[in-house]
Amino acid sequence: MPDKAESARRIARLQEELTAKGIDAAFLLFPIDIYYFAGTRQNSLLYVPASGEPSLLVRKSLSRAQAESAVEVVRPFPSSKELPQLLGPGVQKIGITFDVIPVQQYNFYAKLLPGCEFVDISAINREIRSVKSPFELARMRESGQKTSAVFREIPSFLKEGMREIDLAAEIECRLRKAGCEGYVRMRAFNQELFMGLAVSGASAELPGFFDGAVTGRGLSVASPHGASLSTIAPNTPVLVDYTGVFGGYIVDMTRVFAIGGLSEPLRKAFRTSLEIQAYLAENLKPGAICEELFLSAARMAEEAGLGNYFMGAPGENARFVGHGVGLELDEFPVIAQGFKVPLKAGQTIAIEPKFVIPGEGVIGIENTFAVTGQGGEKITDLPDDLVII
Amino acid sequence: MPDKAESARRIARLQEELTAKGIDAAFLLFPIDIYYFAGTRQNSLLYVPASGEPSLLVRKSLSRAQAESAVEVVRPFPSSKELPQLLGPGVQKIGITFDVIPVQQYNFYAKLLPGCEFVDISAINREIRSVKSPFELARMRESGQKTSAVFREIPSFLKEGMREIDLAAEIECRLRKAGCEGYVRMRAFNQELFMGLAVSGASAELPGFFDGAVTGRGLSVASPHGASLSTIAPNTPVLVDYTGVFGGYIVDMTRVFAIGGLSEPLRKAFRTSLEIQAYLAENLKPGAICEELFLSAARMAEEAGLGNYFMGAPGENARFVGHGVGLELDEFPVIAQGFKVPLKAGQTIAIEPKFVIPGEGVIGIENTFAVTGQGGEKITDLPDDLVII
Repeated sequence: MPDKAESARRIARLQEELTAKGIDAAFLLFPIDIYYFAGTRQNSLLYVPASGEPSLLVRKSLSRAQAESAVEVVRPFPSSKELPQLLGPGVQKIGITFDVIPVQQYNFYAKLLPGCEFVDISAINREIRSVKSPFELARMRESGQKTSAVFREIPSFLKEGMREIDLAAEIECRLRKAGCEGYVRMRAFNQELFMGLAVSGASAELPGFFDGAVTGRGLSVASPHGASLSTIAPNTPVLVDYTGVFGGYIVDMTRVFAIGGLSEPLRKAFRTSLEIQAYLAENLKPGAICEELFLSAARMAEEAGLGNYFMGAPGENARFVGHGVGLELDEFPVIAQGFKVPLKAGQTIAIEPKFVIPGEGVIGIENTFAVTGQGGEKITDLPDDLVII
Repeated sequence: MPDKAESARRIARLQEELTAKGIDAAFLLFPIDIYYFAGTRQNSLLYVPASGEPSLLVRKSLSRAQAESAVEVVRPFPSSKELPQLLGPGVQKIGITFDVIPVQQYNFYAKLLPGCEFVDISAINREIRSVKSPFELARMRESGQKTSAVFREIPSFLKEGMREIDLAAEIECRLRKAGCEGYVRMRAFNQELFMGLAVSGASAELPGFFDGAVTGRGLSVASPHGASLSTIAPNTPVLVDYTGVFGGYIVDMTRVFAIGGLSEPLRKAFRTSLEIQAYLAENLKPGAICEELFLSAARMAEEAGLGNYFMGAPGENARFVGHGVGLELDEFPVIAQGFKVPLKAGQTIAIEPKFVIPGEGVIGIENTFAVTGQGGEKITDLPDDLVII
């Protein structure tokens, strides 16, 4: 968790942005945002004035928040009468992250503070959080090492005739024993993910609600994502796309395995995914424009004759090839069409060129990289090879 | 998943409530609500007019939603110009579930439909969903059987010296291989849960953000819930509180294990939890008032001299003893102070009298019951005994 100095630097960054935008204070209400700035995810409201000391107002548990918080002032959540008095004089415009705060929560505060105007600070929050400090990069590297170590074991237990869910369970069990926290935070309001995907064959090719190239059949229509009860066949790609969460920090990686061999069209698509990854890794430098990186990747897929299969089956293609990752799986920036912003040093991004070729299977690569002046630093430390068993 | 007839009955119930409250239509946006009414959780908007045919407007994946939907009309998500035209004439007051919809989503629709008024239908939705149909009760019983079967195996792998996380990983692996979907949906905006808790000793006694009696230390301050790296000691209660999710339906159950034996204060608290459970199970009948059931349970704890430890360590006590469970872990009704509503037949409720005795440990029982005219039907089919290994 961030220490007092790290927390103070993060809060100072937020205060800079609030001041620049003429916002008097922020109400941070979403657990992982509170964790980022205050070092605890107890149920609370983190009040950050544009200048001066923040305070953590705790609903549950106060004693645990006091033990954990990197912010000095920790107190019980105030009564409806006390809350307005806690605001400094002149606090009128208050920032809230509209991307994740439900209308009921918003209405609760709007009613308590009728004189205040509430504005959206979702983008400010996501932009600040996208750039990782040296402390965070060290955590990300640890997550990368621990997750890669579990991937390294997969050939020892992937067997013909096992079901996708059996493979998933074996991977998940090893991740958990390595200390993986399991719960994968996603910010987008309609996304859900349970640790990752172990999918193959026809199940793997199905499109779905998930904002990614591959969804999987899942175990039921209520949970239509990830491993299914289907049996893993020989000579078919088995795509293992898993997260590892350690100390709150997520890495995201994919490797493809096959029992027996794979057809030349799949091998060609795999080579193309490696070429796209190599191009993007070389260009993950401060100043590179996200949309341009995506368009270059899409052009490389096109030139290889694989444009229809890039990032989804024909007609279901996602228009991105990478996403920020850190305390949440879907952080800024996104290497996507329409994302016309430059990369910054210290951002951490999962790069995942993948192909879905109906009747053949799903194939590709994914690694988590840090943006540096020398290009992407690969954080998920494992060879990229296709693993033939 | 619900078939067309089941889906039609659910939608008719919603339409009854909309009509009774003078609301012209509902916009269902939250995945599990869409699943409940339309039989698919693809990324979409389910439009339900107070009378007439519903339609499912799909963002992703259209083909999968078409294959899954129990609602007849399934079409691509409309453009900003088309959406207002899809509303029937006279549709002015629109219901949205303010409990889970983020402000950004709300603002998107409010801007598209400037002539409309949006009202909160969170309570209507939760009340309808709280009463399970025969189809749903059958799914709940299946979840109960499958989850209980995994609990039955615990004595075969719980060993002295293993860490809480090792025990958790072994339980989770077996649940997954049995077909458990893993991802546990919770509706409360600041709650997070990864499958369940396997906790013991001092770690188990820590209070936390989680709205329950027991939280656990967890693996880091970012994920301060559930199993930790602590080693399981002999003569200490090991509390295993896990969910099982099958076909979308969750059951919730707790058993306590001990290697060696347990002190008399713990044994007494365990007997009291069984007495409270027996009293509540007998009274889980239509018409019983939730708050009165909670107050009776709290009184029984008090009379046993254990009031300070009931549902949390002294000063951290939760004011509930049971919660609705189904497609989400935190459904209506809640057997809690302030919840002055009568039970209805077909509601499914996890009853969990527990005690946290600092220095001694955590102990209690939990089963999922269905409300019937004859009292609670126990759905989690396993003996309630303390398991001494």
